[in-house]
Amino acid sequence: MAEYQAPLRDMRFLLNEIFDAPGQWASLPGLSENVDPETADAILEEAGKIAAGSLAPLNQSGDEEGCHWDNGTVTTPEGFKDAYQTYAEGGWVGLGGDPNYGGMGMPKSLVAQVEEMVQGANMAFGLCPMLTAGACLALHAHGSEELKQKYLPKMYEGTWSGAMDLTEPHAGTDLGIIRTKAKPNDDGSYSITGTKIFITWGEHDMAENIIHLVLAKLPDAPPGPKGISLFLVPKYEVNDDDSLGEHNALSCGSLEEKMGIHGSATCVMNYDGARGFLVGEPHKGLMAMFTMMNYERLGVGIQGVGAAEASYQNALAYARERLQSRSPTGAQEKDKVADPILVHPDVRRMLLKMKAHTEGSRAFITYVAQWLDQAKFAEDAEFQKKADAMVALLTPVAKAFLTDRALDTCVIGQQVFGGHGYIREWGQEQLVRDTRITQIYEGTNGIQAMDLMGRKVVANNGQFFEYFADDVADFITENQDDPALEGYIQPLASAIERLADVTEHVINSAGDNPTEVGAAAVDYLDLFGLTAEAYLWARMVKAAKPKADNDTSGFYTGKLKTARFFYDRLLPQTVALAEGIRNGSDSMMAFSEEEFG
Amino acid sequence: MAEYQAPLRDMRFLLNEIFDAPGQWASLPGLSENVDPETADAILEEAGKIAAGSLAPLNQSGDEEGCHWDNGTVTTPEGFKDAYQTYAEGGWVGLGGDPNYGGMGMPKSLVAQVEEMVQGANMAFGLCPMLTAGACLALHAHGSEELKQKYLPKMYEGTWSGAMDLTEPHAGTDLGIIRTKAKPNDDGSYSITGTKIFITWGEHDMAENIIHLVLAKLPDAPPGPKGISLFLVPKYEVNDDDSLGEHNALSCGSLEEKMGIHGSATCVMNYDGARGFLVGEPHKGLMAMFTMMNYERLGVGIQGVGAAEASYQNALAYARERLQSRSPTGAQEKDKVADPILVHPDVRRMLLKMKAHTEGSRAFITYVAQWLDQAKFAEDAEFQKKADAMVALLTPVAKAFLTDRALDTCVIGQQVFGGHGYIREWGQEQLVRDTRITQIYEGTNGIQAMDLMGRKVVANNGQFFEYFADDVADFITENQDDPALEGYIQPLASAIERLADVTEHVINSAGDNPTEVGAAAVDYLDLFGLTAEAYLWARMVKAAKPKADNDTSGFYTGKLKTARFFYDRLLPQTVALAEGIRNGSDSMMAFSEEEFG
Repeated sequence: MAEYQAPLRDMRFLLNEIFDAPGQWASLPGLSENVDPETADAILEEAGKIAAGSLAPLNQSGDEEGCHWDNGTVTTPEGFKDAYQTYAEGGWVGLGGDPNYGGMGMPKSLVAQVEEMVQGANMAFGLCPMLTAGACLALHAHGSEELKQKYLPKMYEGTWSGAMDLTEPHAGTDLGIIRTKAKPNDDGSYSITGTKIFITWGEHDMAENIIHLVLAKLPDAPPGPKGISLFLVPKYEVNDDDSLGEHNALSCGSLEEKMGIHGSATCVMNYDGARGFLVGEPHKGLMAMFTMMNYERLGVGIQGVGAAEASYQNALAYARERLQSRSPTGAQEKDKVADPILVHPDVRRMLLKMKAHTEGSRAFITYVAQWLDQAKFAEDAEFQKKADAMVALLTPVAKAFLTDRALDTCVIGQQVFGGHGYIREWGQEQLVRDTRITQIYEGTNGIQAMDLMGRKVVANNGQFFEYFADDVADFITENQDDPALEGYIQPLASAIERLADVTEHVINSAGDNPTEVGAAAVDYLDLFGLTAEAYLWARMVKAAKPKADNDTSGFYTGKLKTARFFYDRLLPQTVALAEGIRNGSDSMMAFSEEEFG
Repeated sequence: MAEYQAPLRDMRFLLNEIFDAPGQWASLPGLSENVDPETADAILEEAGKIAAGSLAPLNQSGDEEGCHWDNGTVTTPEGFKDAYQTYAEGGWVGLGGDPNYGGMGMPKSLVAQVEEMVQGANMAFGLCPMLTAGACLALHAHGSEELKQKYLPKMYEGTWSGAMDLTEPHAGTDLGIIRTKAKPNDDGSYSITGTKIFITWGEHDMAENIIHLVLAKLPDAPPGPKGISLFLVPKYEVNDDDSLGEHNALSCGSLEEKMGIHGSATCVMNYDGARGFLVGEPHKGLMAMFTMMNYERLGVGIQGVGAAEASYQNALAYARERLQSRSPTGAQEKDKVADPILVHPDVRRMLLKMKAHTEGSRAFITYVAQWLDQAKFAEDAEFQKKADAMVALLTPVAKAFLTDRALDTCVIGQQVFGGHGYIREWGQEQLVRDTRITQIYEGTNGIQAMDLMGRKVVANNGQFFEYFADDVADFITENQDDPALEGYIQPLASAIERLADVTEHVINSAGDNPTEVGAAAVDYLDLFGLTAEAYLWARMVKAAKPKADNDTSGFYTGKLKTARFFYDRLLPQTVALAEGIRNGSDSMMAFSEEEFG
């Protein structure tokens, strides 16, 4: 297995040469005081070292050993506890956190790169700080000042970790029907009772305390999703002097046996009158939890990019070393028994498909992250509104499109290895097993698609979509006469027009037919993602072209050629997706139950 | 997990209502004496019972327990040995074997259905009889009369099993560079020395003897694939009275740790001067082995269909039971806390994509199987030539297209379960892990695509393709005015024309550019497979339409609606694939090595 190397070159290209991140940071008062280009670069460099040196070496052993459950106690795989301590002490958990509570206040466009490295090196491990950071965000946005002061500093420093407790055995997507109850206590706290399942890092030995954000229903809760409240429930009670008190009335009942991410604990959590604290207003817990969920959804998209990058690195190294058959144009390495498989067109096709989607996905994450920074720090209200809309629109695409592409990429990366890809020691099959969860948790990709199509497109009559389309249109207008972009502007213009037409088509059909949204959703999200990638590849071409002539590293010429491959061989899928959507929902909804078989 | 049920209704529909298998069997002298409709139906019924009652119950436990290696001895998971004995005693191993040596002489169109049931119930188990039957086929076609008489009867009865030993650590796809040596002994036998890896069921405790077909090089072998010979190497020597003699000088060095099919043993086999017997002519072993490989390739396609069917059954059962959220058209089951997820358009989309490809794939297998029966038994030489060409053309499509679709289907089937799909107990994640190997072994799907595009299309200048295109054209001509096929004939005609155009395009470009074949191959195979499925769905519409009016079971109306879904939502992909292929190989081959990263 190739050793994981953080893709710093590509990250710097995105931040400095595509998105002018330093310029953006300098322009935003809330950021300019925390970050400058040198600091950012040092952070990238250091994160790369930790990912490659400390986390990646535990990835395979963590998968093999898994977490252990013994009478409610969870022990992590060998090395995880030490690695976590190093990680926490480096300040990485609070990298994007509010400095007023001990966070480092770094912009998401930078934090996202760090997150990709961590997830690419060790997804099972990476889930723990990812959940902590998301819990902090929800607590920061919705918690009382008292709760924030009590919990955020310890969580930012990683001494305490966070977990999100939503799912119950009978309630996954449909949180409106959860049964966990919260009974008010006399002291203003609540007594939480119920069972939660699929709680990632719900119990473990890496942090001193675990802060659960738990969805539950108050006695006077209205039925459905409008009757859900959010509670902070610590594993150990926290005394007034911030020391740890008694073990709360909660326990981990068991760990799930699952397909992958074995290094992480997936817990059944039982609450038996555990003491918790209301976060935000009663019955508005789902909205508060969405602050965390949206963070995690982008985080899951980032996990996909990380895994795809790792799979590509392994596959490329193998393709350079593995000697098998001769090039169709004649032997390339005559002194060897065969040529490296990198010479074969179909191996190149596989690698380029991996590279095109992985780098396109990284660009997409950075693009969304930059909008997030605008939404958080921009001072112009109108612009902030647009930024909010863009984040809302793009988050489900980041979650679902990037993880769908990531599974494809990992499957292809496994395929490059032939039979060896199916064997554990090479690591490629683990990446497939691990990545598979990213399409499922934090709202399945089908749910993401429905969120995009229904809430983010149809519900606002395409207004959010217009923001995105305008962004692309501006780029096209600015660059339509640029010879560097010949062969890109025209197909990009067709693609965005196709997407706009389909968007309008679905908005129009949805009025008459409530099933149209669900029937179009997944294909629409794919179409959206491919079009967005086409836009970002065009931007990469624009940046790379002037530097390609004097490029001896192959970085810029490689960018140009990957873009060409994307436009020639992957973008045509948009035509098929658009046609499928236009054919409508009738063929799905016409089925009676028995006709399914 | 739903209990596996053999899809007998659909198999009977294919055999009796689409392909008139009984008519074909009656018309072929080699078959008419062995099979009649009643026998065939009894065989289907009985196979369904064994698959559901004896093999499926061992699928999950076999995955969990796996095979055990101890100092060269391999022990199978609990229950496998008994199940194998029942299976062998039922005569199932020799179902398609030559009656002159104890086989049952059944047609492939029937045997393929039985194989699907076995593989759908338990793929790890199914590999053992599948390899035995393939080894018998190669031995039957190329072995001496003495070898055939000595080995075939015991193999057909399953007392001895078969294995194929091709791969070596440095030689997978590129068999020309194998190092295993065969030294002639004075008695006409050979002494085999070398190491083989990835040998499925190479060692185990279910059969009394294991007959390895081993590729090795004779001392005077020319280099490359033309210097490979095929040897039969039994685990135990066979005495003149057919009793078992000494353990041959071969041993299982270890088992691979792999992603799935844990119930099967994947062996490293060491040969230290083991006594073997030449099968066929010296240096022509690869061709002889291809008899087995082509059998296994179709068999692997069948594995895909079986797994896809199992995943669909599980997903459908879950979608009917799992209550979550309300239908977009309003609550359907008001007395329940939520509606079954089957009401949601996107869940229907998932199930229909699974159903469309699984039933389309089963039809494809039956179509190929029927051509195989023609190739074997037809008396008209011209027609037999066409049948041979069709089998050659369609086999790589069956292997690769059906297994690619099968992985998609199993991934979707897992997705229907949401988070529960990632958990072992539900069985869906095992189907994904198991099915993943079908895209890799017996020649990766990339190799299948190259075989199709290079050897089966370009090399004969499209002649084999013409046979297929004529078959479709005949159907179109016969049915173009049939109102039952309105909405199908025109898109089918477009699809076959698109495929024919692309075929011609690649044949023409391949002359000038040797990389074009490899660059087009995978997309071409997809395009071919989708077009073939469209053809078969049209045939199913033709058969189902007249029966749909009086259909209370939903079977025929379900067929019609699934066909509509396929044409509306899946067939459009052909447009994108064709465009990608036309864009050529330049974007792949332009890359220098360093530009990959």
